[in-house]
Amino acid sequence: MTRRATLTGGALVGIGLAEGLLNPAPAAAAAASRDDSRYARGLAVLHETSGERGAAVIESLRDIAPDLGRFVVEFAYGDVYSRAGLDLRERELSTVAALAAQGDAAPQLDFHIDAALHVGVEPEEIIEALIHIVPFMGFPRALNAVAVARKVFADRGVGFEPPVMDDPRDRYMRGTEKLVEIDGHHGLEVIESLKDIAPDLGRFIVEFTFGDVYHRPWLSPRRRQLVTVAALTAFGDTAPQLRVHIGAALNVGLSPAQVVETLIHVVPYAGFPRVLNAIGVAREVFEKRNTPVR
Amino acid sequence: MTRRATLTGGALVGIGLAEGLLNPAPAAAAAASRDDSRYARGLAVLHETSGERGAAVIESLRDIAPDLGRFVVEFAYGDVYSRAGLDLRERELSTVAALAAQGDAAPQLDFHIDAALHVGVEPEEIIEALIHIVPFMGFPRALNAVAVARKVFADRGVGFEPPVMDDPRDRYMRGTEKLVEIDGHHGLEVIESLKDIAPDLGRFIVEFTFGDVYHRPWLSPRRRQLVTVAALTAFGDTAPQLRVHIGAALNVGLSPAQVVETLIHVVPYAGFPRVLNAIGVAREVFEKRNTPVR
Amino acid sequence: MTRRATLTGGALVGIGLAEGLLNPAPAAAAAASRDDSRYARGLAVLHETSGERGAAVIESLRDIAPDLGRFVVEFAYGDVYSRAGLDLRERELSTVAALAAQGDAAPQLDFHIDAALHVGVEPEEIIEALIHIVPFMGFPRALNAVAVARKVFADRGVGFEPPVMDDPRDRYMRGTEKLVEIDGHHGLEVIESLKDIAPDLGRFIVEFTFGDVYHRPWLSPRRRQLVTVAALTAFGDTAPQLRVHIGAALNVGLSPAQVVETLIHVVPYAGFPRVLNAIGVAREVFEKRNTPVR
Repeated sequence: MTRRATLTGGALVGIGLAEGLLNPAPAAAAAASRDDSRYARGLAVLHETSGERGAAVIESLRDIAPDLGRFVVEFAYGDVYSRAGLDLRERELSTVAALAAQGDAAPQLDFHIDAALHVGVEPEEIIEALIHIVPFMGFPRALNAVAVARKVFADRGVGFEPPVMDDPRDRYMRGTEKLVEIDGHHGLEVIESLKDIAPDLGRFIVEFTFGDVYHRPWLSPRRRQLVTVAALTAFGDTAPQLRVHIGAALNVGLSPAQVVETLIHVVPYAGFPRVLNAIGVAREVFEKRNTPVR
Repeated sequence: MTRRATLTGGALVGIGLAEGLLNPAPAAAAAASRDDSRYARGLAVLHETSGERGAAVIESLRDIAPDLGRFVVEFAYGDVYSRAGLDLRERELSTVAALAAQGDAAPQLDFHIDAALHVGVEPEEIIEALIHIVPFMGFPRALNAVAVARKVFADRGVGFEPPVMDDPRDRYMRGTEKLVEIDGHHGLEVIESLKDIAPDLGRFIVEFTFGDVYHRPWLSPRRRQLVTVAALTAFGDTAPQLRVHIGAALNVGLSPAQVVETLIHVVPYAGFPRVLNAIGVAREVFEKRNTPVR
Repeated sequence: MTRRATLTGGALVGIGLAEGLLNPAPAAAAAASRDDSRYARGLAVLHETSGERGAAVIESLRDIAPDLGRFVVEFAYGDVYSRAGLDLRERELSTVAALAAQGDAAPQLDFHIDAALHVGVEPEEIIEALIHIVPFMGFPRALNAVAVARKVFADRGVGFEPPVMDDPRDRYMRGTEKLVEIDGHHGLEVIESLKDIAPDLGRFIVEFTFGDVYHRPWLSPRRRQLVTVAALTAFGDTAPQLRVHIGAALNVGLSPAQVVETLIHVVPYAGFPRVLNAIGVAREVFEKRNTPVR
């Protein structure tokens, strides 16, 4: 029996944990009914993305912070995951990217790599998304996330045979092609701007970020930009790079609305401040290109 | 026997570990005497906030970085915790918020959730402070911090029966009321500014941040703003949000001096750069409102 | 047998794992030959810095992300570690600082504290570098990194007797001297700028950052600035502090090229965005001082 809020007179909210999922306590009915739509919708999406594991996470909060579990269901899944604009595979890939970029979220990364597989993301795409964050957040976070992925693949009995890249072309040449394809002239400006102070840093961006990583075929350009935008947003202090890569997202075919949707998707993982800052950058990009959201 | 600094001629500093706490080595007396006040004051506050655990942490550094232990005592506790302006409950709540916001500090979060209980913070307030950071840093850091809290509560035998919120009013309506109460017109401006690009993001801020979270009665508005300011400062890259929420801290009755005190309190947990950046934001807010610190 | 990239027709790249280090598969020869120089150079530097552990890390990725292991060898070691401008002791100290500053990188911190010892960094210098980050990132990350160092020292049987500082002079006086020595007038400006709003915060910077920490003799001023610049860059949202401390790096004898080299060294650990932002700050500092990179 949990205490009710002293300031409020209503009945307890049936937060629908465990058996409550099926049989909410009568006392909860009235209150729950108000938010039934969000809670029920969230629970359905949580189950669709995570199977039994989702309900288990909510249940695990019952003893200490049941309302936090309710917020996960109602806000993260009922409000955000259930939105249109991105499919569940794109959402779980964005989640994995945001969690890997932030670091310190191994339990959630485990949960969402499992969820990504559950909704049909290919193991190659998950590993590729983690390789993709290396140029943006460095090797440590990618390596630690790959260690989590290995565990999840093993737990699920996913027989994963990692692909290996081979491209006979010159790295700088293929990198420049890819850079222009993805970032357009903005990307070249970044490289140019380094000539006076750190030309090799510019070369590394071309050769490694674009020649080695962006060139890999196991994640589509569109999904690479979803991953890039989600990861940069969650990482923080990346406004100049978000400017380039939100533009790149439009270049590879994402609509302004889909970019905004990707930013909104990051809220449950990194909070409103990071996303509000990224929205400010997106607005600049959209205005400069005269491509309104609607 | 530890080596002395080769550049300095004085006797070893008795950093007062273990039995040394009571019987500093004679050789240490002269040197220690210089800083006795800070070290003794710090040790007293450390014991007041953490009981025996505090001395144990300092002792645990004796084999590898004894001066780091001394800095914890002298700077974190002798200089910062012993200051006026915030009481120890407010300081430990701010510490828990700063640590949870940063992530990757589970051992310190364990220590300070225990300390928060030790100085009289209610378990409800601790869990509430962790739920409060969800809109600002996302679910993962809150969930991982709640897992630490669960362990600490169990270790201390705290029988915690989590409260559950119920508010029959429309979330958007109650959220707007709370938003105006807390942030004043600044908050509404943020929502308004999203209408052209991400109106649902603005709605989520009203409904979730203010309608769901800020409305909860288990943490006072004043303490919510201490938690918000400490967490945003430690999180980094949050200047626009600090601008709104330092203003909100003044709105709910904190003085400019208390806001500055909260920022200073974050130094031992996130370092001077984050705090100096937040001080710059605080100065703008105070000047705009013509509310000097003294 | 791993699959080849569907988009490319070449043979598999022999990424030289385990026995492959000595006997690359024939199929790999052609492809590998293109990048032999980078891969072989990287493998040599990896072995020079980390002995057998390096190859073990690459091998550990063979089952799940072999190309990620190849990128570690080719990019982190073949491109970055093998550059001139900083010696391997300076590079490993910078790596340890960048990893400790970021947090959430215990496995990499373990690896690189071991590597730092391997290339001849003194245990005192490693602990000192971790104590040095306290004023910049706070105690928690330093304490967690020290716990990793303790484990590494024990694993390697490093008998470490920690030095203890003693300086009879007044902390504010010695701190002011050091502040002016390191940061020049920029540093004093920071302290002055706090007089109106948080004078004690300025005093803490003088007494603690410079009087207590910078004064310690176990890390040279030059290496302290390498550590400071690497840590601030990896930490993020520290542009104003990077401005002061890149200037300080020049003050203590590092060349503009060495500062840029330190920033480039951080790329494998924190990614390009953090480093690009720091390069922008470095450019301002160099231009203001009229000290071009070459």
